[in-house]
Amino acid sequence: MRQRNKPWADDFLRENTHLVIPNPSEYKNKWKELFGNDNPIHVEVGTGKGQFIVGMAKQYPNINFIGIELSKSVIVTAAEKVQESGQSNILLIQENAENLTDIFMENEVSTIYLNFSDPWPKNRHAKRRLTFHTFLKRYEATLAYNGELIFKTDNRGLFEYSLVSFSEYGMLLKEISLDLHKDHDPENVMTEYEEKFSAKGQPIYRCKAVFQEE
Amino acid sequence: MRQRNKPWADDFLRENTHLVIPNPSEYKNKWKELFGNDNPIHVEVGTGKGQFIVGMAKQYPNINFIGIELSKSVIVTAAEKVQESGQSNILLIQENAENLTDIFMENEVSTIYLNFSDPWPKNRHAKRRLTFHTFLKRYEATLAYNGELIFKTDNRGLFEYSLVSFSEYGMLLKEISLDLHKDHDPENVMTEYEEKFSAKGQPIYRCKAVFQEE
Repeated sequence: MRQRNKPWADDFLRENTHLVIPNPSEYKNKWKELFGNDNPIHVEVGTGKGQFIVGMAKQYPNINFIGIELSKSVIVTAAEKVQESGQSNILLIQENAENLTDIFMENEVSTIYLNFSDPWPKNRHAKRRLTFHTFLKRYEATLAYNGELIFKTDNRGLFEYSLVSFSEYGMLLKEISLDLHKDHDPENVMTEYEEKFSAKGQPIYRCKAVFQEE
Repeated sequence: MRQRNKPWADDFLRENTHLVIPNPSEYKNKWKELFGNDNPIHVEVGTGKGQFIVGMAKQYPNINFIGIELSKSVIVTAAEKVQESGQSNILLIQENAENLTDIFMENEVSTIYLNFSDPWPKNRHAKRRLTFHTFLKRYEATLAYNGELIFKTDNRGLFEYSLVSFSEYGMLLKEISLDLHKDHDPENVMTEYEEKFSAKGQPIYRCKAVFQEE
């Protein structure tokens, strides 16, 4: 993702700690308290500019959404979108996905979304892909029983790699679409990238997978 | 597959019992004897007009190929291709894939190919799909340890269904291509359908899956 330098970002984050939580590990196992209800928690890893998570929060008011995004200059855009939306069921975290298990307790998360993650096409970068087994281990450690990992991408290589990675890890594939937009899923919420790519006629791939008990 | 009435088919089959084996269950656990060597046996379920199996037999002379095809008028075309090729490492069987375990003993088959199988797109026909769990059970009962099921199709719906079906059955996905011809696999042997569909620019899907020990 292109990152522009945003000198006001630090100020914005300091003033909006109710939107972008500064010390997320303090809320491990306490996110429900922060939201003030018992609704299920869905996490998007790599939230980008926030169109997906804001769209989802509007569509599913009885679910709490948490967006994780490492880039400061990107997450402020997402935070502005959250602010404009007025939705109270979204929080953001500026954090590395590697630290997911510091932020969430076992079973604390019901669903994890990966949307248009960086494909890291070179083999030597495979371990940076968000569907590499070390990341799957983190998702497994936070997801509730039967919690779903929902993965969407336009990148064929990443999708092929990820299906095999899920299978090797012992995950169960529940649903696959190799051309999501031709399937006309009325509940699909698009990311910024998705709008752009699908407008060009490129297929969008999606799958839902769950971890299986040993 | 379109079937034309071929009145000469019965005569042809009677005269070519060395190509199209009339009582295949008699050779259960004895296929190596019939081939006269210990080479691994690869089976194509739904051989159609035979272009794939003949191409494979030429490319891999140290593998024995057996093609199974239910339609009499189609298998005679395959048999003619085998005859013309002069390859001694191909045999054909006119049989229903449901009877696979009558024909092959456990561990007798090293690899099974499914190429452009009938998609049976209606849900109520799902059990006729060659990747329905009842068929997977038959493949498992004949495949050797770590033997591969290699599945190729241009039909998106059938491929999506099949990946989930393999996963639900507990199979391990080893390799997936969502656009085989863009990957330029120099070892890929095309079927008649594959040539036609890929020439139109349609993607060809392929995956390799193995059964896992309990």
